[in-house]
Amino acid sequence: MHDRFLRACRREPVDVTPVWFMRQAGRYMAEYRALRTKHTLLDICRTPELALEVTLQPLRLGMDAAILFADILLPLEPMGAPFEFAKGEGPVIHSPVRSRADVERLRICDPEEGLGHVLEAVRLIRRELDGKTPLIGFAGAPFTIASYLIEGGKSSHYQLTKKMMWSEPELWAQLMHKVSEVVRLFLRAQVAAGAQAVQLFDSWVGSLAVEDYRAHVQPYVARILGDAMSLGVPVIHFGTGTSTLLEAQRDAGGTVIGVDWRIPIDEAWARIGHDRAVQGNLDPLLLLAPREVAVARAKDILRRVGGRPGHIFNLGHGIVPETPVETVQAVIEAVHAGV
Amino acid sequence: MHDRFLRACRREPVDVTPVWFMRQAGRYMAEYRALRTKHTLLDICRTPELALEVTLQPLRLGMDAAILFADILLPLEPMGAPFEFAKGEGPVIHSPVRSRADVERLRICDPEEGLGHVLEAVRLIRRELDGKTPLIGFAGAPFTIASYLIEGGKSSHYQLTKKMMWSEPELWAQLMHKVSEVVRLFLRAQVAAGAQAVQLFDSWVGSLAVEDYRAHVQPYVARILGDAMSLGVPVIHFGTGTSTLLEAQRDAGGTVIGVDWRIPIDEAWARIGHDRAVQGNLDPLLLLAPREVAVARAKDILRRVGGRPGHIFNLGHGIVPETPVETVQAVIEAVHAGV
Repeated sequence: MHDRFLRACRREPVDVTPVWFMRQAGRYMAEYRALRTKHTLLDICRTPELALEVTLQPLRLGMDAAILFADILLPLEPMGAPFEFAKGEGPVIHSPVRSRADVERLRICDPEEGLGHVLEAVRLIRRELDGKTPLIGFAGAPFTIASYLIEGGKSSHYQLTKKMMWSEPELWAQLMHKVSEVVRLFLRAQVAAGAQAVQLFDSWVGSLAVEDYRAHVQPYVARILGDAMSLGVPVIHFGTGTSTLLEAQRDAGGTVIGVDWRIPIDEAWARIGHDRAVQGNLDPLLLLAPREVAVARAKDILRRVGGRPGHIFNLGHGIVPETPVETVQAVIEAVHAGV
Repeated sequence: MHDRFLRACRREPVDVTPVWFMRQAGRYMAEYRALRTKHTLLDICRTPELALEVTLQPLRLGMDAAILFADILLPLEPMGAPFEFAKGEGPVIHSPVRSRADVERLRICDPEEGLGHVLEAVRLIRRELDGKTPLIGFAGAPFTIASYLIEGGKSSHYQLTKKMMWSEPELWAQLMHKVSEVVRLFLRAQVAAGAQAVQLFDSWVGSLAVEDYRAHVQPYVARILGDAMSLGVPVIHFGTGTSTLLEAQRDAGGTVIGVDWRIPIDEAWARIGHDRAVQGNLDPLLLLAPREVAVARAKDILRRVGGRPGHIFNLGHGIVPETPVETVQAVIEAVHAGV
C-alpha cells in the first residue's frame, strides 16, 4: 500500500504524489514535546526504543515515508569530536578541528561500533513498520559536517571553513576524506540494517560558489552517493540555497535531487534533467501561513510538476517547532488529493 | 580622473574596471578600529565629521568610489522604532513591529528632520572629495528593513516576517508602504545633498521564493528605484542569495544589478540582460584566502566579463573584520591591472 514513495524515487507511476517532511518528528508535535520533558535529544537518538517511538509519532498524519529519528552530528563522537546541544545555541563541538593535529586525531570509525545504537534503531523501526511504510535513513554530507567541526557549531558565513578550504587545500582534502569515509560507511551500514532509501543532507553547501563546490566538495559527495546507489536503494541528495548548484549536485549523484523553495520546481527539474526524480519544494514557513494559503501553494507545486512521475512532495527544509499540526495534515491531504 | 565608477554604471567605456567594496570602511582597518575605541558605531553615524573621517579612510587603498558611512537601520529611530547595537548580538529593536497598532505608530519621517545628520555628512563628504572620487549614498530596502522591524533584530529564517506577509497581507502592505516611503524620501534627500549614485540594500530578500518576491516585495522596490532613477543618478539594486530573483529584481529596476558569488557573473549578466550594468561578484571570504588565490579569483571574474562595458567590481557582500588590508589592496590593484 505505501510503496508510492519508493516508486516515485524510481520515477515509476504512482496513485498519488507521495509526501513526507524533513523533521516530521519534532517539537511541533505534542507527543514529541512530552517525550522531550523526560529525555534529551541525544538520549532519544542513542536509545533505539525511544528513536523508534519518535520515528513513528508523525505517521498518523499520513506521511508516505518514515525517516529515522537521528541527528547528522551523531558520527562526531565516535570520530573523536564530542559535542553537546547547548540550550538555545545549537550544537557546540568541544574541540573544533582547525589544525593538522586536529584532523589527524579524527578517526574513521566503524559504524557498528560507534553508531551501533542508530543501526539498532533502524532494525527496530523496520520490524515495527512491517513493510507498511518505507524507512529512510540519512547522514550529513561532508561539507556540512566539516563546517560544524571547523566552526565549532552553527555558523552564519562558514568563515573558518572556507578559509581552510582555500588556504590549506591539503588539510581540507584530508578532513573531507575522513568525514566522507565515515558517512559512506554509515549509510552503507544503515542500508544493511534495513533502511530502504537514504538521504544525504548537505544543508549548508548553498553558501559556496559553483566553482568551489566542484573543486572542493563534489568529488567527496560523488564517492558517497555512488557507493550508496550501488546498494540498489534510492538515494536523495539534499541541500538548501542550492539553486545555482543543481547541475553540479546532479553530477555528483543521487536518484532524487532536493529542491528548496527559491526556485520553481519545474524550472529546477528541467535544469536537473528529467532522468532524475526531484523532492521538494514548499517553503517550510508556509506551514505557519493560514491553512488555505499553505494548501494553495502546495497545489501550485503539483500543478507545476504536472503529474510527471518522479516527484516526492516535501518542504525545502525542516518543519519549524511553531508549525500547527493541523496545517501539516491539511497539506498532506491536499497533496494526496492532487490538483 | 575618478569618473570610471559613474561611467561603468552608465555602461560607458572605461580605462580600467572600477572597484569599490561594500563595508570598505570598517573593522578590518586599523584607523577605523582606533576610532571605534572612542566612539560607538551609532555615534559615528550621527556625527557628520566622524562619518566623513570614516568614509574617507579606505580611499588610500585605491577604491574608485566612496560610500557614505552609515547604517541601513538609521531611519528606524525617526520612524519611531528606536534600536541599539547590543554587544555581539547586532541590532536590537526595542519594540518589534508585530500588530496593527505597531504599524500605525510608525511615522513617515521627513529625512531633513530625522536624518539631517546623515544628509549633513553627505554634504561634508562631497565637499571634501572635491570631485576626485564619486560618492555613493544608500538605504536599506523595504523587505530587509521590515524584517528587522518585525523580528526585532537579525534573523536566520525571517519566520515572523514571512508569517505576517502571508497571514496579514493588508498589514504587510501598510508596513511596506510606510518603510518604502521613508526609504524613497531618504534616497531623494541624499541625492539632493550631493550623493552621485545610490545603492538600495535588499540584503535578506534572497530568503524568498520568486513568487513571494513578485507579489509582496517587488512593487515597493520598483517605486523606490523608479523614483531614484528619475533623479538622473545611477541606482544600484543589491541583494544576496538572489540567484533566482535576478530577473525579478531587474524588473523592479536599477541602473546596476548586484550579483553575489553563488552564480558566475557572465551567467548572471546574460539573465539580467546586457542593457543593465552589473556589480559584483567575489565571495567576501576570498579576502581571507592567500593573496594569490583571491587575486586569481578576481581575475577570473574579469575574464568572464570579457571587457564588456558596465561592470563594477565588488564583493558579493561586505568585507569581514578579519580581512587583511593587504589583500584588499592587492585585489584592487589586480582589478585595475586587468586580466
